Amino acid sequence: MQNPNDPRTLRRFTDSSALRVYFRQNPVPQPTAGLVPGCAQINLVTLPREYAYDFLLFAQRNPRACPVLEVTEPGAREFCELAPGSDIARDFPLYRVYKSGLLDSEPRSVEHLWRDDLVSFAIGCSFSFEWALMRAGIPIRHIEENRNVPMYLTNIPCKSAGIFSGCMVVSMRPIPGRLVPLAVTTTARMPRVHGAPVHVGDPAAIGIKNLDCPDFGDPVTINPGEVPVFWPCGVTPQAAVMRSRPWLAITHAPGHMLVCDVKNADLMD
Amino acid sequence: MQNPNDPRTLRRFTDSSALRVYFRQNPVPQPTAGLVPGCAQINLVTLPREYAYDFLLFAQRNPRACPVLEVTEPGAREFCELAPGSDIARDFPLYRVYKSGLLDSEPRSVEHLWRDDLVSFAIGCSFSFEWALMRAGIPIRHIEENRNVPMYLTNIPCKSAGIFSGCMVVSMRPIPGRLVPLAVTTTARMPRVHGAPVHVGDPAAIGIKNLDCPDFGDPVTINPGEVPVFWPCGVTPQAAVMRSRPWLAITHAPGHMLVCDVKNADLMD
Repeated sequence: MQNPNDPRTLRRFTDSSALRVYFRQNPVPQPTAGLVPGCAQINLVTLPREYAYDFLLFAQRNPRACPVLEVTEPGAREFCELAPGSDIARDFPLYRVYKSGLLDSEPRSVEHLWRDDLVSFAIGCSFSFEWALMRAGIPIRHIEENRNVPMYLTNIPCKSAGIFSGCMVVSMRPIPGRLVPLAVTTTARMPRVHGAPVHVGDPAAIGIKNLDCPDFGDPVTINPGEVPVFWPCGVTPQAAVMRSRPWLAITHAPGHMLVCDVKNADLMD
Repeated sequence: MQNPNDPRTLRRFTDSSALRVYFRQNPVPQPTAGLVPGCAQINLVTLPREYAYDFLLFAQRNPRACPVLEVTEPGAREFCELAPGSDIARDFPLYRVYKSGLLDSEPRSVEHLWRDDLVSFAIGCSFSFEWALMRAGIPIRHIEENRNVPMYLTNIPCKSAGIFSGCMVVSMRPIPGRLVPLAVTTTARMPRVHGAPVHVGDPAAIGIKNLDCPDFGDPVTINPGEVPVFWPCGVTPQAAVMRSRPWLAITHAPGHMLVCDVKNADLMD
């Protein structure tokens, strides 16, 4: 019998739709990093229809931080392009529910909250470009150290749209100096999953005081000869949503993504 | 004294904002092809706010045919990113006004129609990738023959969004077989202005019966050894707007674009 608390159970899945059904039926949340190798994972922002135009416009104006891959019809619960047969309300392993900008709950399913006017946005995830970096032979420190990627609030303003505004959140990966050009060109080929870095080097230049104290995620080791490289991060739209206080917003819980049928390779330009 | 009917008058302009002011003040419309070399030109779709979400979603779902470069606030008349100081209601040399999907008028200005709820979408224009093709040494037949690019309705369905639906309109350029790969890679670098071709070769495969009878624009010569290459065309959103019959829609008249401060080179990824 499968033990749902054993990560090896999940690593056995080689089919993304079977994994989604497993999460749908299993009450124990598990992070999705490394599951179903090659398949893209996505971030979620679900909002009532009244906020959908402002959010889509925010994404249009900030495509690096907020690359929208698919938008549902109001009330629809399936990402039919990225993950046919998916149930948006149940197939993420863990959700966050915000009410007026404040974290209200972190449920395993949001079926009980579903409404006919909810519009869901699938947002590209950095896991996809990390796959490309590793394939290019560039080591990823937070994966080596088995941690969450360090993320930081910056002073880089997003362009505002309607009620949504805020500064960019970035993720940081230390890269050996000689590999920085390859890291840039590799991720530049994936604009639908954040694309090229937004900054290389001095953290203070973008308003980051201390790399050892990330605003989200975990700190990682930076070795001599390595340069901190900063990419636009999918937490940016979540931060904008929290700041803008819509009466309801549903997101995935960090690290708990939807595993899609679409492959990372399909997201290269 | 300047003669506004003499195209040489316009070719003297090396400053895009000065050219915009000239169009604003001058009652004689002139096509904009070739004006202020290096500056990007854009297509226009202006709609009442009630249609803005559906149109932005149509663009998100059909980014190749409908690459949105900037969206105004409701009522605003300036593309402040692309063309600071522009007046959207007067700086295009010629407009088309559609009422319930039917062409109502082709005025020199739409100032008399302006409303506080109008949202304007700047859409990338193929002039930008033609600049890149020519810079790469690829001749453009319709420019050589001093004609408008031939455009065709296809059977390639767009993804629909709210009231907007339709098939893709493509533009065709005959390219010598040995230059097709270069034409593909050159335009692939410009996804914000339609990007790579959508089809190469047999017109019938995408529902085009006769290359000599384009649905818009003019036919061009195809020489032996040349392959017809088809790119997604900015007429697609106009066709979707006409088909979907919003009570009011304003577009530029074909060939009469807004000349921006942004450079074609800035639209390369």
